[in-house]
Parts: sequence; structure tokens; C-alpha cells
Amino acid sequence: MKAIARYRGEQTPRVIDIPKPKPADGEVLVRTIRVGIDGSDRRILSGEIGSPPNGSEYLVLGHEAVGVVVDANGTDMSTGTVVAPLVRRPSDGDTERFERGEPDMAEPGSFVERGIDGSHGYMAEYFTSRPEYLVPVPDAMKDFGFLVEPLSIAEKAIEQALAARSAFDWRPEVAVVLGNGSLGLLALSRLVVGDEFDRTYCLGRRDRPDPTIDFIEALDSTYVDSRETPVDSIPEVHEPADMVYEATGYERHAVDSIGALAANGVACLQGVPGPARHEIDLGSIHRDVVVNNKAILGNVNSRRSHYERAVESLRSIPESRLDQLVTNVYEPTSAANAFADDDSAVKTAIEFG
Amino acid sequence: MKAIARYRGEQTPRVIDIPKPKPADGEVLVRTIRVGIDGSDRRILSGEIGSPPNGSEYLVLGHEAVGVVVDANGTDMSTGTVVAPLVRRPSDGDTERFERGEPDMAEPGSFVERGIDGSHGYMAEYFTSRPEYLVPVPDAMKDFGFLVEPLSIAEKAIEQALAARSAFDWRPEVAVVLGNGSLGLLALSRLVVGDEFDRTYCLGRRDRPDPTIDFIEALDSTYVDSRETPVDSIPEVHEPADMVYEATGYERHAVDSIGALAANGVACLQGVPGPARHEIDLGSIHRDVVVNNKAILGNVNSRRSHYERAVESLRSIPESRLDQLVTNVYEPTSAANAFADDDSAVKTAIEFG
Repeated sequence: MKAIARYRGEQTPRVIDIPKPKPADGEVLVRTIRVGIDGSDRRILSGEIGSPPNGSEYLVLGHEAVGVVVDANGTDMSTGTVVAPLVRRPSDGDTERFERGEPDMAEPGSFVERGIDGSHGYMAEYFTSRPEYLVPVPDAMKDFGFLVEPLSIAEKAIEQALAARSAFDWRPEVAVVLGNGSLGLLALSRLVVGDEFDRTYCLGRRDRPDPTIDFIEALDSTYVDSRETPVDSIPEVHEPADMVYEATGYERHAVDSIGALAANGVACLQGVPGPARHEIDLGSIHRDVVVNNKAILGNVNSRRSHYERAVESLRSIPESRLDQLVTNVYEPTSAANAFADDDSAVKTAIEFG
Repeated sequence: MKAIARYRGEQTPRVIDIPKPKPADGEVLVRTIRVGIDGSDRRILSGEIGSPPNGSEYLVLGHEAVGVVVDANGTDMSTGTVVAPLVRRPSDGDTERFERGEPDMAEPGSFVERGIDGSHGYMAEYFTSRPEYLVPVPDAMKDFGFLVEPLSIAEKAIEQALAARSAFDWRPEVAVVLGNGSLGLLALSRLVVGDEFDRTYCLGRRDRPDPTIDFIEALDSTYVDSRETPVDSIPEVHEPADMVYEATGYERHAVDSIGALAANGVACLQGVPGPARHEIDLGSIHRDVVVNNKAILGNVNSRRSHYERAVESLRSIPESRLDQLVTNVYEPTSAANAFADDDSAVKTAIEFG
């Protein structure tokens, strides 16, 4: 079967031919429908993050997938079920977090991530998985089911933010998304259809006309050009944020977000920057966090319940919005083009079979 | 009556004679028993923070108090009730947070703080207050009731930390207190008697023999000398912290705490530093927060429920420990000495009448 892989040391994906996998005992076989490409995939390709499985010269890419079960292999899954697969799998003896159903809270080093680090991903015509890592998606959503994984990250962040503010009577109104990449726009779509916040803003650094700005405004959200309005001046120019959702991985946002928050607000960080030194007024930031009861939360990965909620949220986002979001769909043989997409693309996916 | 006040521009407290207050309608009259002195009081005295009420040349000091109701003045309080007073009072039209019972979550600018900012404190023979700002304390605890306020800050921080980790199955074991001042030692005492954590550490920078180190070890906690073991190397030298309780206000702790945390851990910041620039590796810190699901929470002030919990906790701390903590008790006329206490003192209080 065809698969899309990165070879060690290379920066262009190869379309390779590998044996169709045979499900082991307790595993099912899934035919891949679509696999999304995000910033992490591009960083894996550039060699910045990720690694092939032990002993392999290549990594099959892709962690945002949707497929259909074609061989239930004696498990309790049904053939024909559309599914979105979780990303993490246990890698050592310590499977406690997996058994508790919280792979996203596992200690680094105790897991691999399919398509990212130490385990092949889903950019292939077929993949296998144990059923507990597969979340059913309604048939009607099969074209957009690959968005469940990135959306589940937003579900986790919102859940953690609400929990972190649950020890008082929090009545949030304003959410600000930092970043108008596909992850930011997907989180924004979720925040708009959800009932947690009344008003939303989305920050970017692009000139009009631009498809992401059109997308933001079609959601009745407000586009903020960070070249004119830096993150920490959002409160003066617009209004303070009860929640900031950081979706760029730019390291300054960890502190600039704090300045964007209202009293009692919460900043959710999801991006993963590399080392980068900055001189900052740590005293004033520390003070601001304390005297205004602010919270900063890091969130990585997600679990089954977040996938399930993401399925519900995806159902609430109008299909016309999703069509506007998923601008580019490629055949596997055009993988190199898919990874080279420029700013005219919002979200790119590869379609199999 | 005698009161202890700071005059604008002065750095030594004065013992002054002011009229005994008359409770207004709906207020009770309280005879002061003891008032504690903490780092904030010393910073007020040095002019670094705080301010007198509008139109006053002086501020009556003191925000950690215990007293006894001597005139119930037609309210539903009883004469003879021992009480610890809350610190914040509404200062403008926006009393919403006070009506919700959460003065600690009020917007800066919407309140004054008795003995700190804009309102006279409790270092006087008598004070008045509305009953809703007075929390009953058992008679037997009248000597230590002034510890309810500082202890309530720890109660709030623990509550917020548990809430912030409530969206997953958190099983914390290790708490690390940064700072062996009176606030740190009080928080440590609370963490030791509580059932949230199994093991505790307390960080300081003092040589033995030292009364705070003795106190830490009498609690079966581990003293960590930060000159040998910096905050972010606690995980290698000892073990990673599920919770860090920052009780010094040193601005570097806002980021160094993150390095002390285990995966899924939470850092609680309470200290209030002034501006101070540092060059730090913001990228690596941001990354650590995200990939390890860490949380940083700022906490200021406390509310009635935290006082009530602090009363319960204070009851659980053996009286011999409290005697060891409250090393210095002065008469009001010795206020200048009380504020000048050196490192041989752990906790200082002023005793009235």
C-alpha cells in the first residue's frame, strides 16, 4: 500500500510502498479516509521535532486522521464504523495513565506518538489500532473527521480552563485566540459555537485580502492585527480577555498572554517552542499574576472524552465553515505539494482511496 | 485609645492616641487581642506599598488580627465572640464580588484593604466592622487567631490548586514551600496537617543553628538550602514537586518554580514583587509548561470560606508548634521594636490590653 513518510535527514516527504498491515490479536484494520497536516507535521519534516520508530529509517507521517473499520478482527467494533484515532500509545511498562484513560497526562518518556515520535502515523492507505484508541465519528462527518484530533486539543484546554476557575464564580465573556493558523481557526470555530464565551477575537499578522481574515469575520469574530495591536495591548484597544488560547507556539506569548488577561483570567498554552532567550520584566509579570488571580495552563495532547466532545462540537460547526477551513485536499501522490502549501491554504489534508 | 500607625514619609511606626471608634449602624465594636506583623507590614512601613485612607496623614497598620466583640450594637453577633476580621472592603459602587462573597476576586480599584491600602487597620485597642467581615474563632484559640488571616491565604491557594487539577485524576504526593519566613512556615504547617500531600520540603537560605530550620524539621519536613540547591534543581536533588507554594515574592520564583514541578504539577504564587528585569529562556519554559501540562496560579487575599477552613486547620496544628512559631509578642508601646525584629524572630505579634 501507499504511505507518506519522512526519511531521516530528508526534508521532503516520500510516497513509499509498504506492506498492508495485518491487525494483531485485539487490533482492528482501518482504511484511511483523510489525514490532516498541521504545523507539527511541517516541523517533523524539517527535522525540528519527532523521530522514526526504533530501528526504522523512516517515519510514516500523520496524526490527524479519519478512517473506516474494514476488519473488526473479532473485537467488539463493527466493520464500517468511521473512526478518529488517538495519537499516544504506551511505550514502556508504565501504562497507569493509559489505564486511567488519560494518555494526555502521561509522563514524557512513557509513550510514543503515532506520526510524531517513535511510532508510525496514519498517512497510509491502511492502519491498525486497538479499539480503545479509536473514537467513532458519525458517517456524515467522515470528510471532516480528521479535524477531531486538533479540535480535541481545544476541548481539553477549555475543560482545563473551566476547572482552573471552578473554585470561584467565574463568568467569562471574552476569549482571544492567538494565531490564525489552522489550529487557531479551529479553536476559534469551537469557541464561537460553544456557550462558554460571548465574544471572541483572533490575532494574526496578515494583510487583507486574506482567507483567514475572511474566515474569522464570517464567524462574527474580530480580527486583531498583532503588528498594530500587540498581544498585551488587547485590553486597551479592545477589551481584556477572560481566556487566551495560544495557538502559535511563539515563546513570548507565554508572558504576553498574561498582559492580555482580565482579572481572574486564564491563559491556555498549547504551542511548543524551542529554546529562546528574552529579557522580560519578570517582577511585574509575577505581580500581575498574583494581584489579579491569573492562571496559566499548559496543555498537551488529549484523551478519549475530548475526542467525543470534539465530535459533538464538529457537528455544531456549519459545514460551509468547514468547507471554508479545509481549503486544500491532495491525493497521496501529491504529498510534497501538500506539505509545501503557502499562506493561501488554511487547512490541508491528504485523501486516501 | 492607642493605635500604631505609619505617617506618610516616615519609616518608623508611631504609637498614637486616637478616639475610640463608635460602631455605625450595622457595625459591631471589637476589642483587639493580638495583631500579627508580616512582610507586607514591613513593606508598608518602608513606603514600598500601601497608602493611608484618603485625606489622612497616617495609616493605622495591621491586617492579621484577632479580637473579641464587646458591643454587638443590635446586630446578630454576640458580645464575647472571638473573631478574625477579613481585610478587604468595597470602595466604589461595584460591590458585586463582595455580594457574591468573593472579595478576593474583586477587580483591583474596587476595594480598599484594611491596614494596607486606603483603610485603617487593626493595630489599635478597638476597631469596628460589619459582622459579615468577622469570622468566629473558638475562644481557646484567641491567642493564635491572628494567624487565621495568613493561613487563609494558604487555604485559598490549596483550594485553587486542587480545582486547577480537577479535570484529571491528580494524585499529588510532594509539596514544596519556597520561603521560611512566617508565611512559608505557616503554609508548611498547614500542608503537614492536611491530607493533600504525603511529603513536604521547605526552602530557605539560612545556616544552622536557626529557629526556622528547627521548626521545619520538627514538622518532619525537609529543609532545602537554596544556596546549595536552587529551586529548579529540587527534582534532581530531592524529587519533583506536585505543588510549589511560593512564599517569598522573589520574582525569579515565578519561572524557577516551573522547573521544580513534576509533570501535571501546579505552582501557586502569592508574593508580590516589584518590577525586575531578567533574561530567561522563555522558549524552554513555555515548552516545559505545555509538554508537562503544568499550571501556574496567582492568588491574592482570601474569603470567608478560606478563613473558616483556616480556623479548622489552626485547630489541627499542635499548640506547641504554634508556640514555636510565634516567637515574639510585644506590647503596643514597643511597636518600633516589633517591626525591627531580626532573623531570630519567626513570627511577631502585638498584644493589646
